Amino acid sequence: MLTYNLTDTGSDSLYEYLYKSIKNDIVQGVIKAGEKLPSKRPFAKNLGVSVITVENAYAQLLAEGFIYSVPKRGFYVSDFKDTRKEQREPLKKEMVPLAGASSVYFADFSSNQTPSELFPFTIWSKVIREVLSDSQAQLMTNPPCGGIFLLRESIARHLKEFRGMNVRPEQILIGAGTEYLYGLLIQLLGQEKIYGVENPGYQKIAKIYNSHRVACEWIDMDGSGICIEELEEKQVDIIHITPSHHYPTGIVMPISRRYELLGWASRGEGRYIIEDDYDSELRLSGQPIPTLQSIDVSERVIYMNTFTKTLCSTVRISYMVLPQKLLIRFYETMSFYSGTVSNFEQYTLARFIEEGKFETHINRLRNYYRQKRDLLLEAINKSEMRSIASISGQEAGLHFLMAVRSDLEEAVVCRQAKEQGIKLVPLSEYYYGSSCRTKNVYVMNYSSIDVSRTDEIMERLYKSFTKNGAEGKSNVFETERNLEKKAKNSCDALKNQVL
Amino acid sequence: MLTYNLTDTGSDSLYEYLYKSIKNDIVQGVIKAGEKLPSKRPFAKNLGVSVITVENAYAQLLAEGFIYSVPKRGFYVSDFKDTRKEQREPLKKEMVPLAGASSVYFADFSSNQTPSELFPFTIWSKVIREVLSDSQAQLMTNPPCGGIFLLRESIARHLKEFRGMNVRPEQILIGAGTEYLYGLLIQLLGQEKIYGVENPGYQKIAKIYNSHRVACEWIDMDGSGICIEELEEKQVDIIHITPSHHYPTGIVMPISRRYELLGWASRGEGRYIIEDDYDSELRLSGQPIPTLQSIDVSERVIYMNTFTKTLCSTVRISYMVLPQKLLIRFYETMSFYSGTVSNFEQYTLARFIEEGKFETHINRLRNYYRQKRDLLLEAINKSEMRSIASISGQEAGLHFLMAVRSDLEEAVVCRQAKEQGIKLVPLSEYYYGSSCRTKNVYVMNYSSIDVSRTDEIMERLYKSFTKNGAEGKSNVFETERNLEKKAKNSCDALKNQVL
Repeated sequence: MLTYNLTDTGSDSLYEYLYKSIKNDIVQGVIKAGEKLPSKRPFAKNLGVSVITVENAYAQLLAEGFIYSVPKRGFYVSDFKDTRKEQREPLKKEMVPLAGASSVYFADFSSNQTPSELFPFTIWSKVIREVLSDSQAQLMTNPPCGGIFLLRESIARHLKEFRGMNVRPEQILIGAGTEYLYGLLIQLLGQEKIYGVENPGYQKIAKIYNSHRVACEWIDMDGSGICIEELEEKQVDIIHITPSHHYPTGIVMPISRRYELLGWASRGEGRYIIEDDYDSELRLSGQPIPTLQSIDVSERVIYMNTFTKTLCSTVRISYMVLPQKLLIRFYETMSFYSGTVSNFEQYTLARFIEEGKFETHINRLRNYYRQKRDLLLEAINKSEMRSIASISGQEAGLHFLMAVRSDLEEAVVCRQAKEQGIKLVPLSEYYYGSSCRTKNVYVMNYSSIDVSRTDEIMERLYKSFTKNGAEGKSNVFETERNLEKKAKNSCDALKNQVL
Repeated sequence: MLTYNLTDTGSDSLYEYLYKSIKNDIVQGVIKAGEKLPSKRPFAKNLGVSVITVENAYAQLLAEGFIYSVPKRGFYVSDFKDTRKEQREPLKKEMVPLAGASSVYFADFSSNQTPSELFPFTIWSKVIREVLSDSQAQLMTNPPCGGIFLLRESIARHLKEFRGMNVRPEQILIGAGTEYLYGLLIQLLGQEKIYGVENPGYQKIAKIYNSHRVACEWIDMDGSGICIEELEEKQVDIIHITPSHHYPTGIVMPISRRYELLGWASRGEGRYIIEDDYDSELRLSGQPIPTLQSIDVSERVIYMNTFTKTLCSTVRISYMVLPQKLLIRFYETMSFYSGTVSNFEQYTLARFIEEGKFETHINRLRNYYRQKRDLLLEAINKSEMRSIASISGQEAGLHFLMAVRSDLEEAVVCRQAKEQGIKLVPLSEYYYGSSCRTKNVYVMNYSSIDVSRTDEIMERLYKSFTKNGAEGKSNVFETERNLEKKAKNSCDALKNQVL
């Protein structure tokens, strides 16, 4: 009979230890396939343990299929072969980023990260606490696939107040980021459709279409936005646009082009316009531009917006507004999907909006960014950059365009800027193919720039555009720790000034 | 010259009111296309406002494209036509569920909702507070697409302790629900592949594949799980399985079939197994069954798990573990995707796991559900149901199977049960096509059953299975309010007993 030493089972219980010992013997071939295991009672007696211990060990082996039972006869070892003796390769280190991209630039004009000082931690914490204590039953109730109704109501009201849009809460679908919503839309509108994106434009949209293996066409823009003729030419069905503030050129689509575009959509079955209104709340002067959605009577506009810029980039809540026909199709074919945003954050955000805190926060943001932009533009005007740079698109969003007179190639400028600790992205990188006609125009995202450094930034920028050589490769990068400290100090200063 | 009465602008500022007035006149055709607007200074003088007011109004009209400027001459009304005068149809009410499905059943055996009493609100609130006060900078830092490192580390340790798996945090990708992760996997593995699902099985998986328009085959199961021959026959590339506890039959795939399946995967290029380990933490007796992932040396297993059952169904956090080859492909082709789970919840969950609170919580859950199951099984044994019902698959998960001897058709039973306020789902509904060979077997999800009602539930069940008629249609549904009250009382009682 099998015998095991059960005097030292380590942290295992008796039955676990016994189970593991037998399993090991089976795997190692010590007990062969077809062999009968000892009957429970004599085995237990032999081992000096209770019958229950043996029973539990056998039950586990049975559950995992190492043994099988023959009624009235007992337990037998299963016949299985582990034919694959290869060793797994160790995981390669490369290609696997672990931490978030923590920028060590002196000034990073490509970052869209919300400065942590801007997030209303105190108020948000308070609202979470209230939700956790007041709404426990609702928090545990599975929401409909479009999102909790309270949040959709709050968003509908917000859209009415901020954008003059008449939207019913039912039309709003909440999702964990616009990227996820694009995936839903592809399923809803059809994989066989041809999708169009703006050229130049936000490259990620095309990447998402490509990743879903749907046809994606780049549509050239003129000064008024997307070219309608090209939509017809390339037989686009669905066009993705940023009409209120084109990224990155800042072009606002005039009303005439808007009506042309709506006309294009209504002329073809299955044509839709995705209106990406990603930063309309952050328009820094004048009123927000009315949405395409609000003048669309043929129900061809899918409106999309996000809290990524107005709240913070690490809270993943976006939404879209579907026209009726699509809404019904969605509920008929895709309502089996569970929501992607946790109830906890949906209820918190709903309350945050309802109590007027979102509006207050947006006003704070606008003041903060306006001040930041003004300080940056002022610094340009005070510095040598003034003689070579001209600015455009500064009215809206968190970036402007800077065109620079320089004989240097963009690649050289960017390399030299990088050596100076400054990250620059040329507008040409937002173009697909050879259609780019701009040179030395840069997209200046300023949301994460430390404004206490503007003078130094300008000096370094000027050097990057004017010198051509390997100088300046000295230690211009600062340690992350120093940068954090400085950023903290200067942000505090800025907050005191404007908030 | 244009004249507007600016004495009563309502809540609008002067410039807003002026802008709206002019815009209205343009849209109404009062001012015609090509007409020149008054020069700013005389217009301002005429209206009795400052030049800035006129400038702002013009700037807004310009931004929206209602007017255009001719250098040194002034502003002119744009030529645009609103050719589409149709009215939008009002939104239809039907097909648009708004609130979550709130069950008014006396006993709903289809619900997987976490009872709100089970969620550790106090501890969760405490952990959120700590995170919000300790980690503000991290909370605002954009995480890598796979999720924050802390959480991936915590999950890796959890998998080591609970499942004996050796997984590196780098291999773990966090997502807002397994449904979202399936979408990512389709993009990663290829739309042209053939995907297989278990028959019977969790129908939603097939729905997701269908929604993505990828080929999906139903693979029959025998008593050991999926049939390998059918995988070959139907040329499946990717098979989705629940080997540790098949849903809904409860079958545990024995080790021999596991090795066969791994052998199948390693024989074909591009073959993968998706191991869905959705409820392994809730195995109620014995040790958890080792995962396929842990015995897979050919790197063909994609392991998937969720916090939906172990934490609650409304917190949307799931994860998958990719083998190296797929991991590298993911980072090469899909790392542009932003994460879908908010940093706030990722950091909270990471801390919850790290501080041992998750383990404590799982133990509580197991006790709670074990007690609930035992009370329910005891009630069956005490009642008339005993004579007609036999139970299986009660060792794991939050459901068991109940086979009933009854001459009635399932449809009749379910209708009669519904009339009794009881929601029953037959196993046959989990089958695709005509392959179902079971009759009057029911999948009994008990997580949301009120155990203080078990005797009454059994009586009503017995009636549903034995009588055949329209009686009992009286008022067996209770009002939602009464139900809530009763549920609260009995849950409190249960909590005091077991937690």
